[in-house]
Amino acid sequence: MRAEPPGKGMTVADLGEFGLIRRVTESRRQPAGTLLGPGDDAAVVAAPDGRVVASTDVLVEGVHFRLDWSSPEQVGRKAVAVNLADVAAMGAVPTGVLVGLACPPKTPAGVIDQLAAGLWAEATRAGVGVVGGDMTSTGSGDVMVVSVSALGDLEGRAPVTRGGALPGDILAVCGRLGWAAAGLAVLGRGFRSPVGVVNAHRVPEPPYAAGPQAALAGATAMIDVSDGLLADLDHVAEASNVAIDVQTNLIEVPQRLVDVSSALGADPRHWVLTGGEDHALAATFPDPHGIPEGWTTIGTVTRGRAVTVDGKPYEGPAGWQHWR
Amino acid sequence: MRAEPPGKGMTVADLGEFGLIRRVTESRRQPAGTLLGPGDDAAVVAAPDGRVVASTDVLVEGVHFRLDWSSPEQVGRKAVAVNLADVAAMGAVPTGVLVGLACPPKTPAGVIDQLAAGLWAEATRAGVGVVGGDMTSTGSGDVMVVSVSALGDLEGRAPVTRGGALPGDILAVCGRLGWAAAGLAVLGRGFRSPVGVVNAHRVPEPPYAAGPQAALAGATAMIDVSDGLLADLDHVAEASNVAIDVQTNLIEVPQRLVDVSSALGADPRHWVLTGGEDHALAATFPDPHGIPEGWTTIGTVTRGRAVTVDGKPYEGPAGWQHWR
Repeated sequence: MRAEPPGKGMTVADLGEFGLIRRVTESRRQPAGTLLGPGDDAAVVAAPDGRVVASTDVLVEGVHFRLDWSSPEQVGRKAVAVNLADVAAMGAVPTGVLVGLACPPKTPAGVIDQLAAGLWAEATRAGVGVVGGDMTSTGSGDVMVVSVSALGDLEGRAPVTRGGALPGDILAVCGRLGWAAAGLAVLGRGFRSPVGVVNAHRVPEPPYAAGPQAALAGATAMIDVSDGLLADLDHVAEASNVAIDVQTNLIEVPQRLVDVSSALGADPRHWVLTGGEDHALAATFPDPHGIPEGWTTIGTVTRGRAVTVDGKPYEGPAGWQHWR
Repeated sequence: MRAEPPGKGMTVADLGEFGLIRRVTESRRQPAGTLLGPGDDAAVVAAPDGRVVASTDVLVEGVHFRLDWSSPEQVGRKAVAVNLADVAAMGAVPTGVLVGLACPPKTPAGVIDQLAAGLWAEATRAGVGVVGGDMTSTGSGDVMVVSVSALGDLEGRAPVTRGGALPGDILAVCGRLGWAAAGLAVLGRGFRSPVGVVNAHRVPEPPYAAGPQAALAGATAMIDVSDGLLADLDHVAEASNVAIDVQTNLIEVPQRLVDVSSALGADPRHWVLTGGEDHALAATFPDPHGIPEGWTTIGTVTRGRAVTVDGKPYEGPAGWQHWR
């Protein structure tokens, strides 16, 4: 953070596209895998195994984030995190991110500085750089849109898709479940604390390293839990043509969620089973003794085509659907 | 085009995210380089030479396109074209595109069908597939945003950056200049013809193959002309620390532009020198006898740090600046 940011009080319209790009790219340090960083027509990133994993997610102000609920820095971190989680869910290690930003002309330049700081903070946490991007005005549109594309490398392994789960496999997860949903519920009631769950909504903490770790351990299928555990397991069940049962006795609901749910009169188990935006990883493994450290066994894969909880269909809304 | 599109009269809100994704991805054929296409957490694309070229551009309704001036199909084609032009400008061959789309909930599903058709049409023209993407609602925002990321392969060559031009080099261009600006002027006056220039604004036709061709011919620097010839040459001059002079006697202004300019009382040379959005390629070559077929020599590179026209600074607005 600068004590006295240059361009204080300026808007993105004052700075112009090139002034802004200079501002957010200069003095950033790229890792070795960034063979050519921002400033040219395109970036060049190492793809050591001759393939590149690539994913895009779009975050829209008012839909995926609110600038009165999250700081621009948190929005930047989240935009990168949700994308890198997709890369990790293939069993790949991140190699870079590109950022497309559309914002209203009146946006303060300081907001972009903070957003860029967040993008870089999360990219750095994953060991990569912001290798390129685009910034543009939304014209008369007053909603900020952040589009991130993430790149990754499979290190010679096959990608772990959603389609490889087999009857007899064990279901396990790594990362938080229900925290972001609890935070969203808190924010929705007008509160700003407890900060643990609120920050979980603001900035997910996907377990990036757990993706390649699961791949090495022989995971047969894997998915990033973005829409909610049951909704995302349904994608695995559909792609793999299997049934998946989640056993709630295997899921320990964190005390923090129990406390928040009591205060709000909510069901913490519902958050854990259906809450999105935590970006945990869920994977299926053939060997119950081969579940990697840090992963928690929570269910089983059988023949059929359904996702059940303790052997029964789960009652209640199953996840987040855009537009609905 | 389907005679009776399914979901006629439906909006994206009616279809939901997954219905829409199914609709725009099913029955598309991916080229061999798409190792894993849409439908999983991320795509996997071949990166034969161990590096990947990657670029992102964001197109905003009302800023980069208007749905009363362009069909959704044309918007889709343009969104892909402007990105693949960036890949070509590095001397790379395209290998895939990812598309992030944010649109208002009330958007007719048919608009998305057409947009997807345009994305696929242009990707196919370049020999690649739409390998992945994301679709989301803009919530209360009523402006559509299309973000495309393009991937490419350098086939073992060094990337041709903006920074390699040397005094003594020859400046050449491949592709159209001034056409999109003429089309924009026509549309701005409320006309819809001549269709040649109007369509040039709606859908640029970047000479994709000319990028790798220039690289093979030893181009020292290259850029995609997106903001206008002089504005983009200024990026080359800055990055290469050279002076570039454009000689107008070497530039033949197409009769079509002369005709349109007469009708509108405009200067066609101004369109050619400063008009953006045609996505021609401009490159510098060390050998005047080594300019590849299809490229037109239009100037020289010397010591210094300026872009001039016939040896003098060009008077007039030098290009397109977002937010200004």
